[in-house]
Amino acid sequence: MNIAIMASGGDCSGMNPATKRFVEYAIEKNINPYFIYDGLEGLIDANFKKASYLDVSGIIYRGGTILRSSRSKRFFEKKYRQKAYENLKKHNIQTVVVLGGDGSFRAFEVLSEEFGINFIGIPSTIDNDIYGTDYCLGVDTALNVIRSAIDDIRDTAMSFKRAFVIETMGRECGYLALISAITSGAEMCLIPEAPYDLDSLKRKFLKSKRKYFLAIVAEGLKISKDIKRWFENEIGIESRLTILGHIQRGGNPTVFDRRVAFEFVTYAIDLILDDKKNQVVVFKDSKVKSLDSKKVTSNRYRLDQHLLNIAQELMH
Amino acid sequence: MNIAIMASGGDCSGMNPATKRFVEYAIEKNINPYFIYDGLEGLIDANFKKASYLDVSGIIYRGGTILRSSRSKRFFEKKYRQKAYENLKKHNIQTVVVLGGDGSFRAFEVLSEEFGINFIGIPSTIDNDIYGTDYCLGVDTALNVIRSAIDDIRDTAMSFKRAFVIETMGRECGYLALISAITSGAEMCLIPEAPYDLDSLKRKFLKSKRKYFLAIVAEGLKISKDIKRWFENEIGIESRLTILGHIQRGGNPTVFDRRVAFEFVTYAIDLILDDKKNQVVVFKDSKVKSLDSKKVTSNRYRLDQHLLNIAQELMH
Amino acid sequence: MNIAIMASGGDCSGMNPATKRFVEYAIEKNINPYFIYDGLEGLIDANFKKASYLDVSGIIYRGGTILRSSRSKRFFEKKYRQKAYENLKKHNIQTVVVLGGDGSFRAFEVLSEEFGINFIGIPSTIDNDIYGTDYCLGVDTALNVIRSAIDDIRDTAMSFKRAFVIETMGRECGYLALISAITSGAEMCLIPEAPYDLDSLKRKFLKSKRKYFLAIVAEGLKISKDIKRWFENEIGIESRLTILGHIQRGGNPTVFDRRVAFEFVTYAIDLILDDKKNQVVVFKDSKVKSLDSKKVTSNRYRLDQHLLNIAQELMH
Amino acid sequence: MNIAIMASGGDCSGMNPATKRFVEYAIEKNINPYFIYDGLEGLIDANFKKASYLDVSGIIYRGGTILRSSRSKRFFEKKYRQKAYENLKKHNIQTVVVLGGDGSFRAFEVLSEEFGINFIGIPSTIDNDIYGTDYCLGVDTALNVIRSAIDDIRDTAMSFKRAFVIETMGRECGYLALISAITSGAEMCLIPEAPYDLDSLKRKFLKSKRKYFLAIVAEGLKISKDIKRWFENEIGIESRLTILGHIQRGGNPTVFDRRVAFEFVTYAIDLILDDKKNQVVVFKDSKVKSLDSKKVTSNRYRLDQHLLNIAQELMH
Repeated sequence: MNIAIMASGGDCSGMNPATKRFVEYAIEKNINPYFIYDGLEGLIDANFKKASYLDVSGIIYRGGTILRSSRSKRFFEKKYRQKAYENLKKHNIQTVVVLGGDGSFRAFEVLSEEFGINFIGIPSTIDNDIYGTDYCLGVDTALNVIRSAIDDIRDTAMSFKRAFVIETMGRECGYLALISAITSGAEMCLIPEAPYDLDSLKRKFLKSKRKYFLAIVAEGLKISKDIKRWFENEIGIESRLTILGHIQRGGNPTVFDRRVAFEFVTYAIDLILDDKKNQVVVFKDSKVKSLDSKKVTSNRYRLDQHLLNIAQELMH
Repeated sequence: MNIAIMASGGDCSGMNPATKRFVEYAIEKNINPYFIYDGLEGLIDANFKKASYLDVSGIIYRGGTILRSSRSKRFFEKKYRQKAYENLKKHNIQTVVVLGGDGSFRAFEVLSEEFGINFIGIPSTIDNDIYGTDYCLGVDTALNVIRSAIDDIRDTAMSFKRAFVIETMGRECGYLALISAITSGAEMCLIPEAPYDLDSLKRKFLKSKRKYFLAIVAEGLKISKDIKRWFENEIGIESRLTILGHIQRGGNPTVFDRRVAFEFVTYAIDLILDDKKNQVVVFKDSKVKSLDSKKVTSNRYRLDQHLLNIAQELMH
Repeated sequence: MNIAIMASGGDCSGMNPATKRFVEYAIEKNINPYFIYDGLEGLIDANFKKASYLDVSGIIYRGGTILRSSRSKRFFEKKYRQKAYENLKKHNIQTVVVLGGDGSFRAFEVLSEEFGINFIGIPSTIDNDIYGTDYCLGVDTALNVIRSAIDDIRDTAMSFKRAFVIETMGRECGYLALISAITSGAEMCLIPEAPYDLDSLKRKFLKSKRKYFLAIVAEGLKISKDIKRWFENEIGIESRLTILGHIQRGGNPTVFDRRVAFEFVTYAIDLILDDKKNQVVVFKDSKVKSLDSKKVTSNRYRLDQHLLNIAQELMH
Repeated sequence: MNIAIMASGGDCSGMNPATKRFVEYAIEKNINPYFIYDGLEGLIDANFKKASYLDVSGIIYRGGTILRSSRSKRFFEKKYRQKAYENLKKHNIQTVVVLGGDGSFRAFEVLSEEFGINFIGIPSTIDNDIYGTDYCLGVDTALNVIRSAIDDIRDTAMSFKRAFVIETMGRECGYLALISAITSGAEMCLIPEAPYDLDSLKRKFLKSKRKYFLAIVAEGLKISKDIKRWFENEIGIESRLTILGHIQRGGNPTVFDRRVAFEFVTYAIDLILDDKKNQVVVFKDSKVKSLDSKKVTSNRYRLDQHLLNIAQELMH
């Protein structure tokens, strides 16, 4: 049997350990592992390779993905999906393990309906915003990269009397921002999922004897610059804005991400051996399970209520 | 109401974020937070301090514990426990939050029986060997310190044709060793909880084309030096032994440990407000709960069967 | 004898190890060490403290400065300088060790002329742009923080076919950008000190088979966004911009910065014991020396010609 | 023209950036770069490869050496040196750039005398014990790995009342130990190059009010265990020993090591283009120069007197 692995959409740390486990566990189970490089673009352009142990040697500690990824417009056209299918058929590949988000899973749902291709999705995104799973690959590494940056910024914040506004990634999801705020001892956190009250925060800060403030703001709100000015005008303290940007995507994968990668991929290959189709591997209540892909892609992720309660303190 | 926090037994990363949350959440709930310094020794010697925000400023990113810890022989004598009780009574402290392992919880069970003192235990040990909880504070930081060391050693292992034997902490528990082996891509792992077969490993290694080997061995087995010699004599490859030692205890707490610290302490104080007594906070199936201390201290931790299955590959 | 230490202007890593050495070496030489907090503002507002061993315990590995710093407008008015002088006189402090840049040294030249106060300057700025010294405190730590960020970004750059534009600090000085480019294997570097040729770079890049590019741009040029667009429009490759910002100021001081801090401060106190006045400690040809402050502040730093030659490759 | 690069003896961080610069600068100068793998063993066994850009892509941030290294007994026999020579001749290689220590340079001096092979040595050893150069490749990375380990250990040392004895690498040379002690604020440092006085240290420590001690001991003295016992018996404080071991050799190369690698290799290739023979590149008074290999290998490195003076404080 031939199976393939590919990355699709944004990259994240943990994809390399996942790829290593994919090759090693496949070979252990007498399956031939293939790489599809460059995501959906490479699927269309037949950028395939039969993988061996050598290909995954020394990659376990590297961020990003040796598979490379892409976003593809061509895939929306039937003729290119036809090409994708023919490439898979030519290599005798019936099932693809997809490291990506719900957009990527939807793409494979289409391929499955049109051409009968099977896939197993592995939720991989630092946004942690996929329905049905408590955890997406890459989140722990991203959080620790952010932690390290905030720890460094705090050193310099303490040296002045300043407010530091730090913008984390997260388009519609404040998970990174909120966990970073809780674990960095920030005084303020603004995320898209919950209302905040600047007047209340203003009263709290003006009363406080603190010499410096850390405020974490999720990218999706698009108000980082406003919050910097708010500190200067309303609180009367010099302020600096740091947009963490792409350093959040990289970094040597943490132990947790390496372990999740190991467990997710092992489970994915076991599903294939079990003849399960179009599943997404999830982490729920400390256990690895799977859900029908449709269930995952047709529902919307919601931030845990417990976390939202904690957020109240930091938003009011 | 006055409540106190103390560390007891071995220290671990995460104790400082826990201490910070203790002070902040207590004040938020209109409780007076106290520190007991130097563990049971300080409890006997009345090394107490009423804590304020200032005491926990800038400690969230530091390993170890500002509370300092100790192991106490005096505590086994009734007259010293009497002193401990009187010190608590003098400060009007009815409940103590104890960062430690089951030995420390047992000490407080005695104090509870003899003098009616209450306590809430927070499992804190890098060995991860406490009954009833999937996770003990400090484990994730220890694992990531080990990871970083192994990543560095791997670089130099690849530069020679060598076997590197790496000894991790863990007296009777192979958790650190096993997770490190899985997440570092080691070729071999030996732990106290499961039988291993050197003959089978020898056959596997002699057949392999690998140029270097990483072997992770738990301290408790006391065979690291033998394994080094085994590589040289049986596999015929130069070998080096690294005993990671105390670097495993330190290190800037990871996001996961900071978050667990936050959740554990919040839950502990909520238990106190709820008038619950002699409980140990645990992390089970992704949820924070509590168990009667007796239940925790009278049962023995067992390594997860799922992990033991994975270990087979690395032990045979 | 009483002597004081203060930080002035931008903070940098290495100030804390310098402060620690200041206290320890002063005491060893039977001098009373004082802290002046909050820079020139604290000097005016009498924010003084007699320092002891305890004040510098556990600070050697922290970025920023426990002395805190500031920029002061009041200091430009004579009446505030008079206050500053009276504060020093009241504490019987004749000499101040100033951690800062040439602006701070100039401020103390005025204080020296007007009131006879002596000072020893220690060049401390991540810009490395002070005349007469090969090295300013903080530069090595800043460079290694940048390195770590670029290493992380490279992981994600390799995962896509992308150009990453990374903006480093440096108003008029390209030192950080240039050294970062050389030591990170960047393909392009633009700095204020030397002309660059985008047409030539375009020809080179279009010919190259590279799948991704790293471009380092010094903040002072104010063209980072233009370069991002240039990659997209002229080279035809998707591009991302990362502004490293304030993470460059923080971070656990490197061994080199801790050692320079040790040597600079030792030399500074030896100068005071030797009755030398208004000197700036410098690092020239691997040796610690000193120059008259006027010589330092009246000359302009120029980037080393050898470095400019290397830069040619990355700018054309 | 064909030139080769190889590593010999112990590996160190910085060898990979050096290898990358070697390939890139050689190609820029229209020279064909070759790799000799596995040190002198690979030289004898004809383990050669013509190198290209691809071979050095993504290696700049990795410790160890992709060239792999070895220690060779066979090289002491003329017949194997004859084979080494013939391999070089067959590949038309007249000059070899050798990353190693004085033992490796001596090996090539013999090859030069017997067969007319030329070489340029690049001092590469974390011991920093080669005559004529202030700096050997790899030292700064090793020092920062040690720093990070000591910072972590200090956290746990502060949590108990303990003496931590930390053994650094360094057979006959205390450079690593001494610089680590100075820059980590250790209370004690013992190295082979200078006498120490335990009685004097004992008096000092007994008088001190410190709650914990850090002692750095160079491996070459072989007294780490004795010093641990000395703390327990003479100072009366619990003590722990940590032998840092091979983690000191690895690690992502620091900016300084990457830059030295860049400058050393550039200078080495310029020497070859200049028809210079059997030189060792050195770093002296902030400048890159070269010395006749014989001069380097026939003289003995001595620790800088200035450093020895600083050591006095830590040894008495």
